[in-house]
Amino acid sequence: MTEISDNNTPYVLCEQSEGVALLTLNRPQQYNALSDAMLSALETELARIATDESIRVVVLAAKGKAFCAGHDLKEMRQNATLDFCQNLFNHCSQVMLMINQLPQPVIAKVQGLATAAGCQLVAACDLAVAVDTAKFATSGINVGLFCATPAVPISRNLGRKQAMELLLTGDFIDAQTALDYGLLNRVVSAEQLDEATQYFVQSILVKSAIAIKMGKQLFYQQLEMPLTAAYQQASTVMANNMLTADAKEGLTAFAEKRAPVWCGH
Amino acid sequence: MTEISDNNTPYVLCEQSEGVALLTLNRPQQYNALSDAMLSALETELARIATDESIRVVVLAAKGKAFCAGHDLKEMRQNATLDFCQNLFNHCSQVMLMINQLPQPVIAKVQGLATAAGCQLVAACDLAVAVDTAKFATSGINVGLFCATPAVPISRNLGRKQAMELLLTGDFIDAQTALDYGLLNRVVSAEQLDEATQYFVQSILVKSAIAIKMGKQLFYQQLEMPLTAAYQQASTVMANNMLTADAKEGLTAFAEKRAPVWCGH
Amino acid sequence: MTEISDNNTPYVLCEQSEGVALLTLNRPQQYNALSDAMLSALETELARIATDESIRVVVLAAKGKAFCAGHDLKEMRQNATLDFCQNLFNHCSQVMLMINQLPQPVIAKVQGLATAAGCQLVAACDLAVAVDTAKFATSGINVGLFCATPAVPISRNLGRKQAMELLLTGDFIDAQTALDYGLLNRVVSAEQLDEATQYFVQSILVKSAIAIKMGKQLFYQQLEMPLTAAYQQASTVMANNMLTADAKEGLTAFAEKRAPVWCGH
Repeated sequence: MTEISDNNTPYVLCEQSEGVALLTLNRPQQYNALSDAMLSALETELARIATDESIRVVVLAAKGKAFCAGHDLKEMRQNATLDFCQNLFNHCSQVMLMINQLPQPVIAKVQGLATAAGCQLVAACDLAVAVDTAKFATSGINVGLFCATPAVPISRNLGRKQAMELLLTGDFIDAQTALDYGLLNRVVSAEQLDEATQYFVQSILVKSAIAIKMGKQLFYQQLEMPLTAAYQQASTVMANNMLTADAKEGLTAFAEKRAPVWCGH
Repeated sequence: MTEISDNNTPYVLCEQSEGVALLTLNRPQQYNALSDAMLSALETELARIATDESIRVVVLAAKGKAFCAGHDLKEMRQNATLDFCQNLFNHCSQVMLMINQLPQPVIAKVQGLATAAGCQLVAACDLAVAVDTAKFATSGINVGLFCATPAVPISRNLGRKQAMELLLTGDFIDAQTALDYGLLNRVVSAEQLDEATQYFVQSILVKSAIAIKMGKQLFYQQLEMPLTAAYQQASTVMANNMLTADAKEGLTAFAEKRAPVWCGH
Repeated sequence: MTEISDNNTPYVLCEQSEGVALLTLNRPQQYNALSDAMLSALETELARIATDESIRVVVLAAKGKAFCAGHDLKEMRQNATLDFCQNLFNHCSQVMLMINQLPQPVIAKVQGLATAAGCQLVAACDLAVAVDTAKFATSGINVGLFCATPAVPISRNLGRKQAMELLLTGDFIDAQTALDYGLLNRVVSAEQLDEATQYFVQSILVKSAIAIKMGKQLFYQQLEMPLTAAYQQASTVMANNMLTADAKEGLTAFAEKRAPVWCGH
């Protein structure tokens, strides 16, 4: 399996510039389906980014009318063995977990349809901005396949009744409803999508890399702990954050009423 | 204790037709209070439905002005021993857990007041539709009895501050507020209540029974797991779902651009 | 370290009257920063209130333009050792946990800015009322210090995407947005702030003290349990609540259509 398609264009485009990695799902004709090859391409990019300290924030975008239509149903139909499916869903889950575990924040920039594992991808990102014409669904149930892995991040972004409705009905919700349900941070017109995404990108770029890294990791970690343990872990992380050069610079700059100059450590 | 009242009408009516079990709480004069007899009647129906594969979806409705006014305060007052109360609340919890564990989705159809354990019943269902004149409260605190068991599903449907407000004040909220807080999926006029409920019923009826069953179980299971374990469990369930006849039929029908014909396995 | 400042006014004012303890953060010039001394003052008051059965509800208010601007950055800068910071954040977490563990409900009455650990303080209270001009932020990230301990209660009040947005951007949200996100129970005009707070105070005062105490403790306890264990614990608490004199009085008063007269046990 290769990460380059027949027409020799990569499954995922990566443009890096000034601390930003823009990953673009690049199979618009296939609605950017999360085939095994597409997942491998994403995995490769995320693994590389994880260790590249020059990258401060990741934007996950897509080409074409769909952001991502979920798994490749054709591929699944042709390989409907337990081994293939277990590997595929493990692979998909692995990529979703990489997003959570990445030191850098990941912003979903949703320009169109996001269904099934595509909706999961939006839910798995740290932040999400969408165009007002985008639609969202966990539509696997329509083909007899409950969106089980998508249920994981979706039920951790939405209320239970709302998550269950999406999963049982397979119905589309519009972007405004997705915002109201907690899946998105912003809904804007097509003309404003770049600007709204850039707002979050710039906001993160001017922060300390080490503080963002420690904070993102702590955020997901403490969510899985009882309250007392969560406070203990958060206190320890925050005390260690205070000892970083960046926090010392931040407090000094604040006292001196000037902008901080981060070293990233 | 019998499940038939003095006037020989059942505590819970059950009408089954074309895959739907309509359970109707049938003590309108007693505001459908969850007496021990009413809980037993519900338990009997749910236990039967759990093993009846011809039933695909359950609607939980009620007769009269109240959907359900919670426990039978008269019964509780006359039997205020630790044994009786512990058994009553265990019994009630058992019925709530049966709703969660039922293979079929359960839709609350709320035509009136839902208070205390009646509000809990709405929260425990998978989906909930209510008339716009319905009201909701966890009013036990008004008689010196904190709605402890209702707090369990209510704090898993609503935000913490909102759940705490309901539980501490005992105040009523209207249906629109309950929708905003996450307790409901739809609020409609009295004339539209049947139609809105039927929408969800029909949406579930046209899905694969085995996919719905595997999915509902996984949904509640993974919510109690850390993220990594949740993804592992979801991947395994989804791979096994893929091997069902229904998923194969679903993918084939999708490829052939026709409606799927489910066998339910 | 003393709890009395240079000008001999206490860090926290406490007025007790008719079952209500009004705690007022009293360093308006320092935006009521949670210095170690301020935390000690809060801790002392909360420890005393915890064992004073005459107090039925606590209001946490503040003097000046800010409700609370978080930690004292000057103090932190001057003591940036691991020991000092670990102790400071442990201390702060301890105070937040005391609010959760206090038998009495705590209502945040937010008259102005609440940032970083100040925003955490609002999130840690059981209920929160704010003036419509109040603003909220987890702004530590602006000085290179991720709001790790604030993330604990904030991620348990807000949706994940919304919590992450606050924590990564450090941006202010207005009171209406904080209400929509789940951080607050009411947003009112400055003229209505007393009345809106008093509404909750009075609502709690007319309830049974023992029922409120058992209920608040159960609420936070069961949130950390799997569903089945949560129901078991809630059933046991509710059965024991039923055996209290207050619950018996409540049910009797209900049957006799009169107001209950609580003894608090």
